[in-house]
Amino acid sequence: MSDATSAAATAISESGPIARELSDGVLRLTLNRPERRNSLSEEMMAGLQDALDAAAEDTAVRVILLRAEGNVFCAGHDLKEMTAARSHSDRGRVYFTEVMNRCARLMQTIVTHPKPVIAEVDGMATAAGLQLVASCDLAIASDRARFCTPGVNIGLFCSTPMVALSRNVSRKQAMEMLLTGEIIDASTAREFGLVNRVVPADYLAQVTAKYAETIASKSPLTLKIGKEAFYAQAEMSLADAYRHCAQVMVENMLARDAEEGIGAFIEKRTPEWTGE
Amino acid sequence: MSDATSAAATAISESGPIARELSDGVLRLTLNRPERRNSLSEEMMAGLQDALDAAAEDTAVRVILLRAEGNVFCAGHDLKEMTAARSHSDRGRVYFTEVMNRCARLMQTIVTHPKPVIAEVDGMATAAGLQLVASCDLAIASDRARFCTPGVNIGLFCSTPMVALSRNVSRKQAMEMLLTGEIIDASTAREFGLVNRVVPADYLAQVTAKYAETIASKSPLTLKIGKEAFYAQAEMSLADAYRHCAQVMVENMLARDAEEGIGAFIEKRTPEWTGE
Amino acid sequence: MSDATSAAATAISESGPIARELSDGVLRLTLNRPERRNSLSEEMMAGLQDALDAAAEDTAVRVILLRAEGNVFCAGHDLKEMTAARSHSDRGRVYFTEVMNRCARLMQTIVTHPKPVIAEVDGMATAAGLQLVASCDLAIASDRARFCTPGVNIGLFCSTPMVALSRNVSRKQAMEMLLTGEIIDASTAREFGLVNRVVPADYLAQVTAKYAETIASKSPLTLKIGKEAFYAQAEMSLADAYRHCAQVMVENMLARDAEEGIGAFIEKRTPEWTGE
Repeated sequence: MSDATSAAATAISESGPIARELSDGVLRLTLNRPERRNSLSEEMMAGLQDALDAAAEDTAVRVILLRAEGNVFCAGHDLKEMTAARSHSDRGRVYFTEVMNRCARLMQTIVTHPKPVIAEVDGMATAAGLQLVASCDLAIASDRARFCTPGVNIGLFCSTPMVALSRNVSRKQAMEMLLTGEIIDASTAREFGLVNRVVPADYLAQVTAKYAETIASKSPLTLKIGKEAFYAQAEMSLADAYRHCAQVMVENMLARDAEEGIGAFIEKRTPEWTGE
Repeated sequence: MSDATSAAATAISESGPIARELSDGVLRLTLNRPERRNSLSEEMMAGLQDALDAAAEDTAVRVILLRAEGNVFCAGHDLKEMTAARSHSDRGRVYFTEVMNRCARLMQTIVTHPKPVIAEVDGMATAAGLQLVASCDLAIASDRARFCTPGVNIGLFCSTPMVALSRNVSRKQAMEMLLTGEIIDASTAREFGLVNRVVPADYLAQVTAKYAETIASKSPLTLKIGKEAFYAQAEMSLADAYRHCAQVMVENMLARDAEEGIGAFIEKRTPEWTGE
Repeated sequence: MSDATSAAATAISESGPIARELSDGVLRLTLNRPERRNSLSEEMMAGLQDALDAAAEDTAVRVILLRAEGNVFCAGHDLKEMTAARSHSDRGRVYFTEVMNRCARLMQTIVTHPKPVIAEVDGMATAAGLQLVASCDLAIASDRARFCTPGVNIGLFCSTPMVALSRNVSRKQAMEMLLTGEIIDASTAREFGLVNRVVPADYLAQVTAKYAETIASKSPLTLKIGKEAFYAQAEMSLADAYRHCAQVMVENMLARDAEEGIGAFIEKRTPEWTGE
C-alpha cells in the first residue's frame, strides 16, 4: 500500500475532496471543496481520514501539511447534511452520533498520527474547522486567516471544537471565543497560542514549506517517538510523566538513529537516518 | 422563588452586602461594602452565595456581571473576623474550616453556574478577591485595576486563591505572584491570561454591558450546556473529553433551540430561543 | 549537618562541579564546569543533587539561586559519557536507565524542594539544561540567554526535557521547539512563559538578588506550605484542589507564623517569623 500510495501521490489528485501532493517527504493534503466552504461533510471527513490513514503507513511521507483551496479554510460541519437527518424517525440521533464520532476520530487521528502535521491557514477556520487547526502539531497562518467558534449563535455550542481549542488556549480566552462566537484575527490567534506564527499571505506557502522541510530532515523514528510521548505525558502527573518519558528516552537511545545522530554530532558530520 | 427574585431585582437593592440590578437579562451583582474594602466577610459570602443561587433558578437572568462599589474590587478574606476566632477553645480550627469550605463552595458555584459570569474589575482584587475574578468565565478590567496574592506577606500563603489563579495563568507567572506577593497591573493581568481585556475606566461599564448583551442574546440552554461541558472536559484526557463532548453535541443537536438556530441560519433569519 | 553545611558555605567552594555561596539566606548554586559547557555529567548531577538535598535540611537557606559559570548555562546530558556506555554488553541499557532516572529525580527534587528555587540564566540552556530552568519556580534571564531542545537533530527527541517544558509553555509553542530543534531568544522564552523576566546582562545578578531577597524575607514555613500545595493542586480536579487547599489553609492559619503575620499586619508592624 505504501508504494502504491506514494507513487500515486507524486502528481496532484484533484477529483476527490482532498488533493494530495507528495514532494521531498512532505505530503500536502488540500481540502478541495472551496465551493462548499470546505465543510466537513461526510465526503470530506472520509477523504481526510483515508488520506491520513494512508500517510501513516507510507514511509515516503515524513511531514504532513494540511491546507485548503479557496478563501475559507474550513467552515465546520455541513449543516445541510445534519439538518436533513432531522427527518429520520429518531430525529437524527443515530446520524448525529455517527457524525460526531467520526469527527472526534478524525481529530484524534491527527494527534496520534506518527508524522507531524502542520496546518497552513490562509482563510477562515470555523468551529470544527478551527478544531482541525488546533489539533495539528503546528499551525502557521497568513495575516488574512481568521478563527471563530460561532456555534453559540445557532444554538449549538462548539463543544467538540473546544476540546482542541482549550488544549491550545487559556481558559478565559477560549471562553470569550465560545460564549460570544466572535471572530479573532490571525495575530490574536497567535497571541492566544492557537497558531505558531503569522506571515504575509504571499509568503505563507514558502514559510510552511520551510518548516516542513526542516522537520522532514529529522529521523522519522525520532519524530514518531517524540510526538507520541508528548501527548501521552501531557495527560500524566509529573511523577508518571517522568517515569514514562525516562523509559522512552532509554528506548530512543538504543535505537540506531540515535546512535547515528549522536555519533554524527560528535564527529561533526551529517547523520544518515534509517528510521530504525 | 424565580418570579419573586426577578420582580424584586428590577430595582437596585442597596441595603445588603450585594446590590442586585436586573435589566434585559443581565443581572448586575455589586459587592457593596466599600467601607470594608468589599472583603469576603461572612455576611458578604452569604450574600453572594444567595444571589448566585437565586440567579441560577431565575429564568429572567441570562448573564451575570460581578462588580464592586468603590476603588477596591475585593480585599480577600476578612482578617479581623478570622483573627477573632483565635480565642475559641480550638484556636479557631472549626471556624477556619467553615470559612474555607464556604469560600471554596462560593467559587465553585461561579464555575458550575448555569449562566455565564463576567467580572467587571475597576480596582484592586486581592487574594480571595482575585480568586473571584479568576473563577468567572470572563473578566474585563479597567486600566486602574490591579491584582495580587499577598498572603505570603502575612504568613498565610494564598493556597485557595491559587487554585483559581493557576487555572488561568502559566506556572511561572502564578508562582511569581504567589512567592513575591507583589501587585500586577491590569495590562500584565491581561498578558498573563487572568483578564480578557483592559479598557479605560470611563468605558468599563459600557464594554462589559456590550459583552453581557451579546451573550444574553444567545440561547440560555445552549450557554448552560456549553459552559458545563467546558469545565468538565477540561479535567479529562483527550479521549474522554471527546467521548463526553461528542455526546453533549448530540443532545444539543436534538434540543429545540439548536433546531431553531440552525434553521434560522440556513433561512437567514433571526432565531427565537425558547430555552428548550 | 545543617550547621556544618551553612558554616562551610559562607565561603565559595570552587573545586567541585557546584560552587556554593550562602549569604543572607540566599544560597547561590553555580554550575562550575564551563569548560564542559556545564553539561549534566554524572559528576554534575551528583553534585547538584547533593547541594539541593543539603539545602533542604539547612534552615539557614531560605531561597536558592541556580546559576552557571561561563556563557553556557547548561548543555544538557554529557553525550560522551552516554556514548561510552554503548560498549557495554547490554549496549548501555542499564546505564542509560540509571542516568535518566537520576536526572528525573534531580528535576523533581527542585519541584518538591521546600525552598523556592530561582534560575538565573545568562547563556544557552539546552535540552536537560532547559529542563533545569523549566523545573525552577521562577526564572530570570539576561537578554543574551537562549533556549533550545535540539535532541531531534541528533535522533534523540527531548522527551524528558519536554515534561518540564510543556508544563510551562503552550502546546504549539513547545511542539515548535521540539520538532524543529531551533533556538529561541530570551524575549521569546518570556513570551512563551518559560522565563518570568528578561533583563540586560549587566543587571541580571542584581535583579535575581532582589527577587531572592524579597522571597527570603517571607516565612520559610509559609513558603514551604505554599510551594508544596501549588504543585500538588495543579494535578488535581477543581473540586479535589479546593478540598486539598482549603485544608492546607486551615493548617496554615493555625501555624504560629500566620498568627504573627496577620497580627503584625493588623497592628501595622513588621512580622518576626519563627518558621513554625
